[in-house]
Amino acid sequence: MADEVVLLDFWASMFGMRARVALAEKGIEYEYREEDLRNKSQLLLQMNPVHKKIPVLIHNGKPVCESLIIVQYIDEVWSDKAPLLPSEPYQRACSRFWADFIDKKLYDAGRKIWSTKGEEQEAAKKDFIEILKQLEGQLGGKPYFEGEKFGFLDIALITFYSWFHAFETCGNYSIEAECPKLIAWAKRCKQRESVSKSLADEKKVYEFVLSIKKMLGVE
Amino acid sequence: MADEVVLLDFWASMFGMRARVALAEKGIEYEYREEDLRNKSQLLLQMNPVHKKIPVLIHNGKPVCESLIIVQYIDEVWSDKAPLLPSEPYQRACSRFWADFIDKKLYDAGRKIWSTKGEEQEAAKKDFIEILKQLEGQLGGKPYFEGEKFGFLDIALITFYSWFHAFETCGNYSIEAECPKLIAWAKRCKQRESVSKSLADEKKVYEFVLSIKKMLGVE
Repeated sequence: MADEVVLLDFWASMFGMRARVALAEKGIEYEYREEDLRNKSQLLLQMNPVHKKIPVLIHNGKPVCESLIIVQYIDEVWSDKAPLLPSEPYQRACSRFWADFIDKKLYDAGRKIWSTKGEEQEAAKKDFIEILKQLEGQLGGKPYFEGEKFGFLDIALITFYSWFHAFETCGNYSIEAECPKLIAWAKRCKQRESVSKSLADEKKVYEFVLSIKKMLGVE
Repeated sequence: MADEVVLLDFWASMFGMRARVALAEKGIEYEYREEDLRNKSQLLLQMNPVHKKIPVLIHNGKPVCESLIIVQYIDEVWSDKAPLLPSEPYQRACSRFWADFIDKKLYDAGRKIWSTKGEEQEAAKKDFIEILKQLEGQLGGKPYFEGEKFGFLDIALITFYSWFHAFETCGNYSIEAECPKLIAWAKRCKQRESVSKSLADEKKVYEFVLSIKKMLGVE
Protein backbone atom coordinates (compact mmCIF):
# COMPACT_ATOMS: atom_id res chain seq x y z
CA MET A 1 0.00 0.00 0.00
CA ALA A 2 1.31 3.43 -0.90
CA ASP A 3 1.66 5.78 2.06
CA GLU A 4 -1.05 8.37 2.38
CA VAL A 5 0.48 11.47 3.90
CA VAL A 6 -1.48 14.65 4.66
CA LEU A 7 -0.13 17.77 6.38
CA LEU A 8 -2.52 20.14 8.13
CA ASP A 9 -0.62 23.38 8.19
CA PHE A 10 -0.69 27.17 8.02
CA TRP A 11 1.64 28.81 5.51
CA ALA A 12 3.39 31.24 7.88
CA SER A 13 3.91 28.82 10.78
CA MET A 14 7.55 28.16 11.65
CA PHE A 15 6.36 24.94 13.26
CA GLY A 16 4.49 23.82 10.15
CA MET A 17 7.49 24.68 7.98
CA ARG A 18 9.60 22.23 10.01
CA ALA A 19 7.38 19.36 8.88
CA ARG A 20 7.55 20.63 5.27
CA VAL A 21 11.36 20.76 5.28
CA ALA A 22 11.62 17.28 6.82
CA LEU A 23 9.21 15.79 4.27
CA ALA A 24 11.11 17.49 1.44
CA GLU A 25 14.47 16.18 2.75
CA LYS A 26 13.05 12.67 2.69
CA GLY A 27 11.41 13.17 -0.71
CA ILE A 28 7.95 12.25 0.59
CA GLU A 29 4.94 13.22 -1.50
CA TYR A 30 2.07 14.52 0.55
CA GLU A 31 -1.13 16.47 0.40
CA TYR A 32 -0.82 19.96 1.91
CA ARG A 33 -4.00 21.29 3.49
CA GLU A 34 -4.02 24.92 4.51
CA GLU A 35 -5.95 25.64 7.70
CA ASP A 36 -7.86 28.82 8.47
CA LEU A 37 -6.74 29.29 12.07
CA ARG A 38 -9.75 31.45 12.87
CA ASN A 39 -12.10 28.75 11.59
CA LYS A 40 -10.35 25.44 12.11
CA SER A 41 -11.48 22.44 10.11
CA GLN A 42 -13.33 19.54 11.67
CA LEU A 43 -10.43 17.39 10.54
CA LEU A 44 -7.93 19.43 12.56
CA LEU A 45 -10.14 19.38 15.67
CA GLN A 46 -10.57 15.65 15.28
CA MET A 47 -6.90 14.89 14.60
CA ASN A 48 -5.48 17.11 17.35
CA PRO A 49 -8.25 17.32 19.96
CA VAL A 50 -5.77 18.05 22.76
CA HIS A 51 -4.07 21.19 21.44
CA LYS A 52 -6.19 21.93 18.33
CA LYS A 53 -3.04 23.26 16.64
CA ILE A 54 -1.24 22.84 13.37
CA PRO A 55 0.94 21.19 12.17
CA VAL A 56 -0.60 17.74 12.17
CA LEU A 57 0.91 15.02 10.03
CA ILE A 58 -1.68 12.39 9.12
CA HIS A 59 0.05 9.21 8.01
CA ASN A 60 -2.26 6.50 6.71
CA GLY A 61 -5.08 8.01 8.75
CA LYS A 62 -3.15 8.34 12.01
CA PRO A 63 -2.24 11.79 13.40
CA VAL A 64 1.13 12.90 14.71
CA CYS A 65 1.19 16.30 16.47
CA GLU A 66 3.84 18.78 17.70
CA SER A 67 6.43 19.81 15.14
CA LEU A 68 9.59 18.36 16.73
CA ILE A 69 7.79 15.06 17.35
CA ILE A 70 6.63 15.09 13.73
CA VAL A 71 10.19 15.61 12.46
CA GLN A 72 11.48 12.75 14.63
CA TYR A 73 8.59 10.56 13.43
CA ILE A 74 9.40 11.34 9.78
CA ASP A 75 13.05 10.53 10.47
CA GLU A 76 12.18 7.18 12.08
CA VAL A 77 9.59 6.05 9.50
CA TRP A 78 11.58 7.02 6.42
CA SER A 79 14.92 6.04 7.90
CA ASP A 80 16.46 4.84 4.63
CA LYS A 81 17.10 8.34 3.29
CA ALA A 82 18.62 11.61 4.54
CA PRO A 83 18.98 10.88 8.29
CA LEU A 84 18.03 13.98 10.25
CA LEU A 85 18.98 13.22 13.85
CA PRO A 86 22.60 12.24 14.49
CA SER A 87 23.17 8.53 15.10
CA GLU A 88 25.22 8.90 18.28
CA PRO A 89 23.15 9.15 21.54
CA TYR A 90 25.06 12.10 23.00
CA GLN A 91 24.74 14.10 19.80
CA ARG A 92 21.05 13.21 19.65
CA ALA A 93 20.58 14.47 23.20
CA CYS A 94 22.36 17.74 22.29
CA SER A 95 20.17 18.21 19.22
CA ARG A 96 17.03 17.57 21.25
CA PHE A 97 18.23 19.97 23.96
CA TRP A 98 18.81 22.87 21.58
CA ALA A 99 15.60 22.23 19.63
CA ASP A 100 13.73 22.31 22.95
CA PHE A 101 15.62 25.51 23.84
CA ILE A 102 14.40 27.11 20.59
CA ASP A 103 10.80 26.16 21.38
CA LYS A 104 11.00 27.40 24.96
CA LYS A 105 12.74 30.70 24.22
CA LEU A 106 12.81 31.89 20.62
CA TYR A 107 9.12 31.95 19.67
CA ASP A 108 8.05 34.15 22.58
CA ALA A 109 11.06 36.45 22.22
CA GLY A 110 10.32 36.92 18.50
CA ARG A 111 6.64 37.54 19.10
CA LYS A 112 7.42 40.26 21.62
CA ILE A 113 9.49 42.15 19.05
CA TRP A 114 6.44 42.91 16.91
CA SER A 115 3.72 42.87 19.55
CA THR A 116 5.21 45.38 22.00
CA LYS A 117 6.54 48.94 21.96
CA GLY A 118 9.09 51.15 23.70
CA GLU A 119 11.15 49.66 26.51
CA GLU A 120 9.41 46.32 26.34
CA GLN A 121 10.27 46.06 22.66
CA GLU A 122 13.89 47.06 23.30
CA ALA A 123 14.16 44.31 25.93
CA ALA A 124 12.61 41.80 23.49
CA LYS A 125 15.08 42.75 20.75
CA LYS A 126 17.96 42.26 23.16
CA ASP A 127 16.56 38.94 24.41
CA PHE A 128 16.12 37.69 20.87
CA ILE A 129 19.73 38.47 19.98
CA GLU A 130 21.01 36.85 23.16
CA ILE A 131 19.14 33.65 22.34
CA LEU A 132 20.52 33.70 18.79
CA LYS A 133 24.03 34.29 20.12
CA GLN A 134 23.72 31.20 22.31
CA LEU A 135 22.68 29.26 19.22
CA GLU A 136 25.51 30.81 17.20
CA GLY A 137 27.90 29.61 19.90
CA GLN A 138 26.51 26.12 19.54
CA LEU A 139 26.97 26.30 15.75
CA GLY A 140 30.60 27.33 16.17
CA GLY A 141 32.64 26.91 13.01
CA LYS A 142 30.57 24.03 11.63
CA PRO A 143 28.63 24.40 8.38
CA TYR A 144 25.50 22.95 10.01
CA PHE A 145 24.47 22.49 13.64
CA GLU A 146 25.11 18.78 13.67
CA GLY A 147 28.35 19.02 11.67
CA GLU A 148 28.89 18.56 7.96
CA LYS A 149 25.31 17.52 7.23
CA PHE A 150 22.03 19.42 7.36
CA GLY A 151 19.87 17.84 10.07
CA PHE A 152 17.29 18.00 12.86
CA LEU A 153 18.52 21.11 14.64
CA ASP A 154 18.95 23.00 11.39
CA ILE A 155 15.31 22.21 10.62
CA ALA A 156 14.21 23.30 14.10
CA LEU A 157 15.78 26.74 13.66
CA ILE A 158 15.82 27.62 9.95
CA THR A 159 12.06 28.08 9.75
CA PHE A 160 12.33 31.09 12.06
CA TYR A 161 14.51 32.74 9.44
CA SER A 162 11.47 33.51 7.29
CA TRP A 163 10.30 35.78 10.12
CA PHE A 164 13.63 37.59 10.59
CA HIS A 165 12.76 40.29 8.03
CA ALA A 166 9.56 41.03 9.99
CA PHE A 167 11.47 41.10 13.30
CA GLU A 168 14.11 43.38 11.81
CA THR A 169 11.63 45.76 10.22
CA CYS A 170 9.33 45.94 13.25
CA GLY A 171 12.32 46.25 15.59
CA ASN A 172 14.22 48.63 13.29
CA TYR A 173 17.50 46.75 13.70
CA SER A 174 19.76 44.30 11.92
CA ILE A 175 20.03 40.73 13.14
CA GLU A 176 22.87 40.08 10.69
CA ALA A 177 24.98 42.85 12.26
CA GLU A 178 24.70 41.05 15.61
CA CYS A 179 24.88 37.43 14.48
CA PRO A 180 26.72 37.29 11.14
CA LYS A 181 27.70 33.62 11.44
CA LEU A 182 24.16 32.56 12.12
CA ILE A 183 22.91 34.48 9.11
CA ALA A 184 25.62 32.90 6.96
CA TRP A 185 24.37 29.51 8.19
CA ALA A 186 20.77 30.47 7.33
CA LYS A 187 21.78 31.50 3.82
CA ARG A 188 23.62 28.19 3.46
CA CYS A 189 20.48 26.32 4.49
CA LYS A 190 18.36 28.31 2.06
CA GLN A 191 20.47 27.06 -0.80
CA ARG A 192 18.88 23.66 -0.22
CA GLU A 193 15.77 23.09 -2.26
CA SER A 194 14.07 21.41 0.72
CA VAL A 195 14.38 24.67 2.64
CA SER A 196 13.84 27.24 -0.10
CA LYS A 197 10.63 25.63 -1.30
CA SER A 198 9.27 25.10 2.23
CA LEU A 199 9.91 28.46 3.82
CA ALA A 200 7.32 31.21 3.59
CA ASP A 201 8.26 34.35 1.68
CA GLU A 202 9.73 36.87 4.12
CA LYS A 203 7.88 39.82 2.59
CA LYS A 204 4.56 38.02 2.91
CA VAL A 205 5.36 37.12 6.51
CA TYR A 206 6.02 40.80 7.19
CA GLU A 207 2.69 41.77 5.62
CA PHE A 208 1.03 39.07 7.72
CA VAL A 209 2.65 40.47 10.87
CA LEU A 210 1.43 43.97 9.95
CA SER A 211 -2.09 42.62 9.56
CA ILE A 212 -1.99 40.96 13.00
CA LYS A 213 -0.53 44.12 14.57
CA LYS A 214 -3.47 46.04 13.11
CA MET A 215 -5.94 43.45 14.36
CA LEU A 216 -4.43 43.55 17.85
CA GLY A 217 -4.24 47.34 17.84
CA VAL A 218 -0.42 47.45 18.14
CA GLU A 219 0.84 50.35 16.02
CA MET B 1 36.54 1.99 30.82
CA ALA B 2 33.70 1.80 33.32
CA ASP B 3 31.01 4.42 32.84
CA GLU B 4 31.11 7.30 35.25
CA VAL B 5 27.56 8.46 35.85
CA VAL B 6 26.64 11.37 38.12
CA LEU B 7 23.15 12.77 38.65
CA LEU B 8 22.71 16.34 39.85
CA ASP B 9 19.29 16.33 41.38
CA PHE B 10 16.93 17.60 44.07
CA TRP B 11 15.08 14.98 46.13
CA ALA B 12 11.53 16.34 45.61
CA SER B 13 11.81 17.11 41.89
CA MET B 14 9.42 15.09 39.72
CA PHE B 15 11.81 15.79 36.86
CA GLY B 16 14.83 14.50 38.75
CA MET B 17 12.91 11.41 39.82
CA ARG B 18 12.37 10.55 36.15
CA ALA B 19 16.12 10.19 35.68
CA ARG B 20 16.35 8.10 38.87
CA VAL B 21 13.61 5.70 37.73
CA ALA B 22 15.18 5.32 34.26
CA LEU B 23 18.64 4.62 35.73
CA ALA B 24 17.11 2.09 38.13
CA GLU B 25 15.20 0.36 35.31
CA LYS B 26 18.48 -0.04 33.44
CA GLY B 27 20.38 -1.10 36.54
CA ILE B 28 22.96 1.66 36.18
CA GLU B 29 25.09 2.54 39.17
CA TYR B 30 25.58 6.25 39.63
CA GLU B 31 26.59 8.91 42.07
CA TYR B 32 23.65 10.97 43.31
CA ARG B 33 24.48 14.58 44.17
CA GLU B 34 21.83 16.58 45.98
CA GLU B 35 21.67 20.23 44.95
CA ASP B 36 20.70 23.13 47.18
CA LEU B 37 18.47 25.01 44.75
CA ARG B 38 18.92 28.28 46.64
CA ASN B 39 22.68 27.95 46.44
CA LYS B 40 23.44 25.99 43.29
CA SER B 41 26.79 24.28 42.96
CA GLN B 42 29.45 25.48 40.56
CA LEU B 43 29.20 22.09 38.90
CA LEU B 44 25.49 22.57 38.16
CA LEU B 45 26.06 26.07 36.76
CA GLN B 46 28.89 24.76 34.65
CA MET B 47 27.06 21.67 33.41
CA ASN B 48 23.75 23.40 32.62
CA PRO B 49 24.71 27.02 31.93
CA VAL B 50 21.62 27.57 29.77
CA HIS B 51 18.83 26.69 32.20
CA LYS B 52 20.83 26.23 35.45
CA LYS B 53 18.33 23.55 36.47
CA ILE B 54 18.40 20.01 37.78
CA PRO B 55 18.33 17.22 36.77
CA VAL B 56 21.62 16.97 34.92
CA LEU B 57 23.03 13.58 34.03
CA ILE B 58 26.80 13.69 33.68
CA HIS B 59 28.01 10.69 31.73
CA ASN B 60 31.78 10.35 31.49
CA GLY B 61 32.09 14.08 32.06
CA LYS B 62 29.49 15.16 29.50
CA PRO B 63 26.21 16.73 30.63
CA VAL B 64 22.72 15.84 29.44
CA CYS B 65 19.95 18.19 30.54
CA GLU B 66 16.13 18.23 30.56
CA SER B 67 14.48 15.19 32.11
CA LEU B 68 12.71 13.71 29.07
CA ILE B 69 15.88 14.10 27.02
CA ILE B 70 17.83 12.41 29.81
CA VAL B 71 15.43 9.46 29.85
CA GLN B 72 15.69 9.07 26.07
CA TYR B 73 19.48 9.32 26.32
CA ILE B 74 19.60 6.62 29.00
CA ASP B 75 17.36 4.45 26.82
CA GLU B 76 19.60 4.90 23.78
CA VAL B 77 22.95 4.42 25.55
CA TRP B 78 21.93 1.38 27.62
CA SER B 79 19.78 -0.11 24.90
CA ASP B 80 20.51 -3.73 25.76
CA LYS B 81 18.25 -3.81 28.81
CA ALA B 82 14.68 -2.76 29.70
CA PRO B 83 13.71 -0.72 26.62
CA LEU B 84 11.76 2.33 27.71
CA LEU B 85 10.43 3.88 24.50
CA PRO B 86 8.32 1.61 22.24
CA SER B 87 10.12 0.32 19.15
CA GLU B 88 7.43 1.31 16.63
CA PRO B 89 7.69 4.91 15.31
CA TYR B 90 3.98 5.73 15.71
CA GLN B 91 3.93 4.48 19.30
CA ARG B 92 7.12 6.43 19.97
CA ALA B 93 5.50 9.59 18.61
CA CYS B 94 2.45 9.01 20.85
CA SER B 95 4.65 8.50 23.91
CA ARG B 96 6.58 11.67 23.15
CA PHE B 97 3.36 13.60 22.57
CA TRP B 98 1.84 12.66 25.93
CA ALA B 99 5.10 13.18 27.81
CA ASP B 100 5.28 16.65 26.27
CA PHE B 101 1.63 17.19 27.25
CA ILE B 102 2.49 16.34 30.87
CA ASP B 103 5.34 18.86 30.84
CA LYS B 104 3.25 21.59 29.24
CA LYS B 105 0.16 21.14 31.42
CA LEU B 106 0.51 19.10 34.59
CA TYR B 107 3.32 20.86 36.44
CA ASP B 108 1.70 24.30 36.33
CA ALA B 109 -1.74 22.95 37.17
CA GLY B 110 -0.33 21.08 40.17
CA ARG B 111 1.63 24.07 41.38
CA LYS B 112 -1.46 26.26 41.31
CA ILE B 113 -3.30 23.85 43.63
CA TRP B 114 -0.99 24.63 46.52
CA SER B 115 0.08 28.16 45.61
CA THR B 116 -3.36 29.76 45.22
CA LYS B 117 -6.55 30.11 47.23
CA GLY B 118 -10.33 30.46 46.76
CA GLU B 119 -11.69 30.51 43.22
CA GLU B 120 -8.27 30.31 41.64
CA GLN B 121 -7.51 27.18 43.63
CA GLU B 122 -10.86 25.63 42.73
CA ALA B 123 -10.13 26.25 39.03
CA ALA B 124 -6.65 24.73 39.43
CA LYS B 125 -8.08 21.61 41.12
CA LYS B 126 -10.57 21.19 38.26
CA ASP B 127 -7.85 21.76 35.63
CA PHE B 128 -5.60 19.21 37.26
CA ILE B 129 -8.32 16.55 37.25
CA GLU B 130 -9.20 17.30 33.62
CA ILE B 131 -5.57 16.80 32.60
CA LEU B 132 -5.41 13.55 34.54
CA LYS B 133 -8.68 12.38 32.94
CA GLN B 134 -7.16 12.96 29.50
CA LEU B 135 -4.19 10.86 30.57
CA GLU B 136 -6.52 8.22 32.05
CA GLY B 137 -8.27 8.06 28.68
CA GLN B 138 -4.94 7.46 27.02
CA LEU B 139 -4.15 4.69 29.52
CA GLY B 140 -7.47 2.99 28.75
CA GLY B 141 -7.63 -0.60 29.92
CA LYS B 142 -3.89 -1.22 29.56
CA PRO B 143 -1.73 -2.05 32.60
CA TYR B 144 0.86 0.56 31.52
CA PHE B 145 0.71 3.50 29.14
CA GLU B 146 2.64 1.80 26.39
CA GLY B 147 0.88 -1.57 26.85
CA GLU B 148 1.98 -4.59 28.83
CA LYS B 149 5.36 -3.13 29.76
CA PHE B 150 6.40 -0.26 32.00
CA GLY B 151 8.02 2.40 29.82
CA PHE B 152 8.83 6.01 28.92
CA LEU B 153 5.40 7.53 29.44
CA ASP B 154 4.94 5.73 32.75
CA ILE B 155 8.22 7.27 33.90
CA ALA B 156 7.16 10.72 32.66
CA LEU B 157 3.99 10.64 34.79
CA ILE B 158 4.59 8.43 37.83
CA THR B 159 6.97 10.88 39.47
CA PHE B 160 4.11 13.36 39.89
CA TYR B 161 2.38 10.76 42.03
CA SER B 162 4.69 11.54 44.95
CA TRP B 163 3.10 15.02 44.98
CA PHE B 164 -0.53 13.83 44.83
CA HIS B 165 -0.83 13.65 48.63
CA ALA B 166 0.27 17.29 48.85
CA PHE B 167 -2.15 18.31 46.09
CA GLU B 168 -4.99 16.42 47.79
CA THR B 169 -4.28 17.79 51.23
CA CYS B 170 -3.77 21.40 50.07
CA GLY B 171 -6.79 21.14 47.78
CA ASN B 172 -8.91 19.20 50.29
CA TYR B 173 -10.11 16.71 47.71
CA SER B 174 -9.52 13.18 46.52
CA ILE B 175 -7.81 12.55 43.20
CA GLU B 176 -8.57 8.84 43.50
CA ALA B 177 -12.33 9.53 43.64
CA GLU B 178 -12.04 11.33 40.29
CA CYS B 179 -9.47 9.15 38.53
CA PRO B 180 -9.60 5.66 40.07
CA LYS B 181 -8.02 3.91 37.08
CA LEU B 182 -5.08 6.29 37.04
CA ILE B 183 -4.48 5.75 40.76
CA ALA B 184 -4.65 1.98 40.23
CA TRP B 185 -2.00 2.40 37.51
CA ALA B 186 0.16 4.50 39.90
CA LYS B 187 -0.08 1.83 42.61
CA ARG B 188 0.88 -0.79 40.03
CA CYS B 189 3.95 1.27 39.07
CA LYS B 190 4.91 1.72 42.74
CA GLN B 191 5.18 -2.04 43.10
CA ARG B 192 8.27 -1.84 40.93
CA GLU B 193 11.47 -1.40 42.88
CA SER B 194 12.78 1.10 40.31
CA VAL B 195 9.84 3.36 41.15
CA SER B 196 9.42 2.77 44.89
CA LYS B 197 13.09 3.45 45.61
CA SER B 198 13.24 6.54 43.34
CA LEU B 199 10.11 8.40 44.35
CA ALA B 200 10.22 10.90 47.19
CA ASP B 201 8.15 10.11 50.28
CA GLU B 202 4.72 11.73 49.89
CA LYS B 203 4.58 12.93 53.49
CA LYS B 204 7.96 14.62 53.12
CA VAL B 205 6.83 16.24 49.87
CA TYR B 206 3.77 17.58 51.70
CA GLU B 207 5.97 19.03 54.47
CA PHE B 208 8.19 20.55 51.79
CA VAL B 209 5.15 22.13 50.12
CA LEU B 210 4.03 23.55 53.47
CA SER B 211 7.47 25.09 53.94
CA ILE B 212 7.36 26.74 50.50
CA LYS B 213 3.82 27.99 51.13
CA LYS B 214 5.07 29.59 54.33
CA MET B 215 8.05 31.09 52.55
CA LEU B 216 5.81 32.51 49.81
CA GLY B 217 3.24 33.73 52.30
CA VAL B 218 0.43 31.51 50.97
CA GLU B 219 -1.59 30.23 53.95
